[in-house]
Amino acid sequence: MEQTMQDRGARAGSKLTRFSVSPLASQTRRLADVASGRSAPDLVITGARMLSTYSERMLDNREIWVAGGRIAAVKPAGAYKSGIGSGAVLYDARGGILAPGLVDPHIHIESSMVTACAYAEAALLNGTTTIFCDSHEIGNVMDVAGVEAMLEDARQAPLSIFLTVPSTVPATSPDLETAGGDLTPDKIAAIFDRWPEAVGLGEKMDFVPVTMGDERSHAILAAALSRGRPVSGHIYGREFVAAYAASGVTDTHEAIDRDIADDLVEAGVWVFLRGGPPTTPWHSLPEAIKTVTELGASHKRLAICTDDRDADDLMFFGLDWVAREAMKAGLTREQAWSLGSLHPATRFAMDGEIGGLGGGRRADIVLLNDDMEVRNTWYGGELVVEDHRITPILDQALSERYRYPDAAYRTVKLDTAPRLTPDLPSERCIAHTIRTELPGIVLVHDRQELEPANDWQTHFDRHNLCFVSVVERHGRSDGRVAHGLLKDFGLKRGAVASSVGHDSHNIIVAGTNEADMQVALAAIREHQGGVCVVADGEVAAMVPLPIAGLLSDKRVTEVAEETRALKAAWEAAGCTIAYMGFNLIPLAVIPEIRITDRGLVLVPEMELTLLFEPAAA
Amino acid sequence: MEQTMQDRGARAGSKLTRFSVSPLASQTRRLADVASGRSAPDLVITGARMLSTYSERMLDNREIWVAGGRIAAVKPAGAYKSGIGSGAVLYDARGGILAPGLVDPHIHIESSMVTACAYAEAALLNGTTTIFCDSHEIGNVMDVAGVEAMLEDARQAPLSIFLTVPSTVPATSPDLETAGGDLTPDKIAAIFDRWPEAVGLGEKMDFVPVTMGDERSHAILAAALSRGRPVSGHIYGREFVAAYAASGVTDTHEAIDRDIADDLVEAGVWVFLRGGPPTTPWHSLPEAIKTVTELGASHKRLAICTDDRDADDLMFFGLDWVAREAMKAGLTREQAWSLGSLHPATRFAMDGEIGGLGGGRRADIVLLNDDMEVRNTWYGGELVVEDHRITPILDQALSERYRYPDAAYRTVKLDTAPRLTPDLPSERCIAHTIRTELPGIVLVHDRQELEPANDWQTHFDRHNLCFVSVVERHGRSDGRVAHGLLKDFGLKRGAVASSVGHDSHNIIVAGTNEADMQVALAAIREHQGGVCVVADGEVAAMVPLPIAGLLSDKRVTEVAEETRALKAAWEAAGCTIAYMGFNLIPLAVIPEIRITDRGLVLVPEMELTLLFEPAAA
Repeated sequence: MEQTMQDRGARAGSKLTRFSVSPLASQTRRLADVASGRSAPDLVITGARMLSTYSERMLDNREIWVAGGRIAAVKPAGAYKSGIGSGAVLYDARGGILAPGLVDPHIHIESSMVTACAYAEAALLNGTTTIFCDSHEIGNVMDVAGVEAMLEDARQAPLSIFLTVPSTVPATSPDLETAGGDLTPDKIAAIFDRWPEAVGLGEKMDFVPVTMGDERSHAILAAALSRGRPVSGHIYGREFVAAYAASGVTDTHEAIDRDIADDLVEAGVWVFLRGGPPTTPWHSLPEAIKTVTELGASHKRLAICTDDRDADDLMFFGLDWVAREAMKAGLTREQAWSLGSLHPATRFAMDGEIGGLGGGRRADIVLLNDDMEVRNTWYGGELVVEDHRITPILDQALSERYRYPDAAYRTVKLDTAPRLTPDLPSERCIAHTIRTELPGIVLVHDRQELEPANDWQTHFDRHNLCFVSVVERHGRSDGRVAHGLLKDFGLKRGAVASSVGHDSHNIIVAGTNEADMQVALAAIREHQGGVCVVADGEVAAMVPLPIAGLLSDKRVTEVAEETRALKAAWEAAGCTIAYMGFNLIPLAVIPEIRITDRGLVLVPEMELTLLFEPAAA
Repeated sequence: MEQTMQDRGARAGSKLTRFSVSPLASQTRRLADVASGRSAPDLVITGARMLSTYSERMLDNREIWVAGGRIAAVKPAGAYKSGIGSGAVLYDARGGILAPGLVDPHIHIESSMVTACAYAEAALLNGTTTIFCDSHEIGNVMDVAGVEAMLEDARQAPLSIFLTVPSTVPATSPDLETAGGDLTPDKIAAIFDRWPEAVGLGEKMDFVPVTMGDERSHAILAAALSRGRPVSGHIYGREFVAAYAASGVTDTHEAIDRDIADDLVEAGVWVFLRGGPPTTPWHSLPEAIKTVTELGASHKRLAICTDDRDADDLMFFGLDWVAREAMKAGLTREQAWSLGSLHPATRFAMDGEIGGLGGGRRADIVLLNDDMEVRNTWYGGELVVEDHRITPILDQALSERYRYPDAAYRTVKLDTAPRLTPDLPSERCIAHTIRTELPGIVLVHDRQELEPANDWQTHFDRHNLCFVSVVERHGRSDGRVAHGLLKDFGLKRGAVASSVGHDSHNIIVAGTNEADMQVALAAIREHQGGVCVVADGEVAAMVPLPIAGLLSDKRVTEVAEETRALKAAWEAAGCTIAYMGFNLIPLAVIPEIRITDRGLVLVPEMELTLLFEPAAA
């Protein structure tokens, strides 16, 4: 398996990638020579404390001998004497703490709207050297081809990226939404058999059908389990834990409180504590960690993860930040760092390769200050971050990013622009409106009575409404569109739109008038994807997302800058929920009412409803 | 992979084996149904405390719902209400503690001189439901064919048996000893590719060559590592730890004291604390565990194991006993039991299948009393031990043991009986004698001056000597024999002999006279293997070992009885070291002098020496 990965990796040439470090199998003799002092290491990082994730102790005054991108030995500082062979590069790390690079067991790169190659920059700045990503979003747009393109992207990134294969594409069914992807059990099995880095099954989001014994869902589970691949989960509700665990799920990152976290640990499920920006509902770590700090469970089956990040948040809320949050919540620094390195590595049976500073492991190493902030990162023995800044070798690697296939740049398939607003009702009626509430996840189903009016603006002013429409963009229809009304969204003029409309990623447009909504739609068509804010016929801010309508092809710093500008315009337009929440409006698996290209969907009934119905007499 | 294992297992028919429980992939829907209360479990074990290896807590008043041999759910006691479907069998476990079946990460079945099928009986009585065995001994006799026969034996056993493929066969080289096996890197690779239960590489005993970069040793490591299989180790000496770990070794069971255990943990090596009968040197747990209890290392990278057991010790010193020893040494009962279940399962990436009472896992469950003694064992949901006694279903399974191929019953290939004693020296000379010392592992190289005498008995009386000879028995010579002299062994008359002469398993015979030694050799030829004590021309006690000259084909209780009788006769004959130590006399990797069929070998020089040399003038 390693051999295959290596062979394929060789295509990427001499650029810094995961494959720059040869498999351990081919290096054991050299490493034994170096560890025994018979030949010189390439690099000696010396004079620092070392955080051991194996023993959870801080060891004084160590040095790490690196050869061929791997750790040959950890010795007392000063053990290396020049004069063995041609001599090693010495790196003085005095005052710092050496620790293994972080391992993020569950993320979606697409949430950051960047490619895998671009994501690497932010990860390495945060001391993350390995990620397990679920390319669920691009799977929904481009099916297997999208997943495979992202795997190629991952292979060319200067970061170790493994895949948990998207398990729930589409999120619902073709009756309720039109997706670009349909990942059947057979297709998923084929991905496992073709790609050695497909190490597990991605979050099985349809946990209710799973616990109900749904046939397709269990066939997908079987595709993974029969190949010995672990299954990642996504679950809310203590009542579902037993049946979900019995279905073979062995991790989840959705434990939102102490008690469900405790149930999950006891059911044999690894719990990934998710840290997110504290203003978001994704920051569940402080509650979930109480299974340890209040209920006395061992921390050995816990890890930490980031799950999703806006591009502009990537630098501030990395996995290193999550580890520090775990410390604030009561873990020691050694425990917290273990939860971000050795534990996820163990969960994916890669603790012989990553997750600790043991012999033979990849030299994925960080240098921390006393506040556990990342100063330096070595990736496979290469210094890629120094004093919080990327080094020239990383800059070079990041400038040669994978180019997605042309088909990925042509996924907004709209020949004509459909009308984006509904007819004005001529009589009194009931509108099934979608009311937004903070934090922007659950949407409330309101039955809003509309008295006749001369124009939509009158309705909007009376009831704090605006338009919301979803346009099918996968070329599966001739611009099928569904119309709805959004309440309390706060948009006072213009329009906002996004091609990142979870999970099918049709185009969602909200606005106060047809003209601005058409401008927004046109901008997305022009760039083949993006998120934008329009006012008075002009695009005020936009993050173009030409790859699958989901990803920018720029570097992460540029995308972060564009995202900041978009957020400013978004807020200026009055929108009460963030664009990430807006993107979830079509996600027809969260209560109570959503809108897809097929129309308004009631959840959990999983039924379509018309926008208007006659008012009672 | 699971599928293949299942298909092959089906050959074993309906007898209780590992394959009696279908793979999880085929059972998830049923388990979800049961966990959700939509259909009835097969079995409910109710009303007991539960030891959680995941959280390391004792949970009160639980019940376990079992379906299809797997755990569907753990619920509060009393949760199961009859009336769902056809109803479950209820088992009242009040007063006890439910815990996962034990997982022994490193054992050699051959040490107990029984087959895998027979070994299962002792294991289950001790609450052990999974073992990882290294069939190193039969590999030395029968090469790949022996390893594969034992794999078939393992598949037909009522126990989960996985293989770590023998890595160091022969132990030395054909110049120094004649073995029946030669497991080359290619043969080892082929075993990995053919047998899904070959989950790792067995203990790489030649740790000095490994750390020195020996080519063949590293090619064998590469065969495992390139296939993603973990490598088990065997190492003494802190100075070797770094290079050994750098060579890809990720566990060892040979940590004999606190400091090397600590070094190993820090080098990223899983430490299996070995417990053995306290009178033997194998009981290293009490010292090694001090890495935790004195030096503060986390216990999360530790496990416990048994390694080797005489058949008659199997019942008294099982892995449950080792867990209790770990408690005595300072661990909590929850930690200690985790070291014997979840931790080894995790080390071999099987924690989704065994090692804890989580959803979907095999229903390998024990019921303990407050002293942590095993009362009951359920293997895949079948009650196989109840109140310390095997149940009829297990008795039935044990009565249909695998029959080894005929070739396995013809491995003592001796056409003629060679002479077993050397010529009496006619002049003063120096004899290179082998001095035994307790505990019987290291043998001291003495240069014993012999004054001329009329017979050997005179020499024996003067210097406390007896004969020791090793006879080649693999049919690679016409009864090649090497003669030596054993000092302080204590044998006063008769002879003792064994076909279990590590690691090549030629026949070792010690005695005071040619006639009794020939009787012993003849007994071994007749039975095609065994260990025996002879006095006055008669066999006083014998354990016949007709399979590969290593294993009995009887049940473990019978072999234990024969072993007890043998030990009594052995002691009565005056032997100062136990038969296990006697069997190690030909093992030419332990200092200072050994004897193989090639002659006397000096270790670590790895040179042959003649028995006699002229005395200085």
